[in-house]
Amino acid sequence: MKLAIEEAKKASLRGSVPVGAVIVLQDKVIASAGNEVLKNADPTAHAEIICIGMACRHLNCSILKHCDIYVTLEPCAMCAQAISLARISRLYFGAYDSKYGGVVHGCRVFNYSLHKPEIVGGISETLCTEILQNFFKDRRN
Amino acid sequence: MKLAIEEAKKASLRGSVPVGAVIVLQDKVIASAGNEVLKNADPTAHAEIICIGMACRHLNCSILKHCDIYVTLEPCAMCAQAISLARISRLYFGAYDSKYGGVVHGCRVFNYSLHKPEIVGGISETLCTEILQNFFKDRRN
Repeated sequence: MKLAIEEAKKASLRGSVPVGAVIVLQDKVIASAGNEVLKNADPTAHAEIICIGMACRHLNCSILKHCDIYVTLEPCAMCAQAISLARISRLYFGAYDSKYGGVVHGCRVFNYSLHKPEIVGGISETLCTEILQNFFKDRRN
Repeated sequence: MKLAIEEAKKASLRGSVPVGAVIVLQDKVIASAGNEVLKNADPTAHAEIICIGMACRHLNCSILKHCDIYVTLEPCAMCAQAISLARISRLYFGAYDSKYGGVVHGCRVFNYSLHKPEIVGGISETLCTEILQNFFKDRRN
């Protein structure tokens, strides 16, 4: 999660909402990315989507079996479904997102998806939340 | 929808599940793509995700206001949320998808999303369904 937080901070420096994601296979990081919506002018360029693409290219496979994903924020419905499609084993996320989250909030994607990862939320929650709050506070000022 | 169907047929020739998508702004096609999951070895490479990325690059903007999307199959939760994030005005889709769909099936993303497009399903439904059925029939043989 430390590396995902670093990715979130880097996204913040690019002016993007600070969310970071890391994919791990057998204790080895195979992909890491931050949110690039603003940089790419693409609303689908969430950290998780970019990270899943990177991991698949790394393994040359569209299925990320036995892989875990660490994300600093509860994934939205788009990213939750992507995690399901990629057959990721475990999802660890930091801050909860009552507005845009799609895992334990909103449409709760995994209650309906064919593949559901193990889910652990609230990891480094305070730090992950603070990074987001600071970003939005700075933008309001 | 005719062009989306052509994209679906091209995807089929590449060995990918035949789904196509087209994005239109003021009667002008600004993006069209087919499913490239297999070609790209990326489970997020659905026709809608690729098409939204193309349209955003075309307009150099992460918001596709006043744009409409035509898809040959009911979008899954990932693509439905992407359509919402892109603020697409209208979603026209062909075949219904009771197994993987996330619009009128499954987690019904737009019941929870901040932006909900106008939705019309069942356009050229028979043809869109046939293309999919033929693809899976051929793979079983």
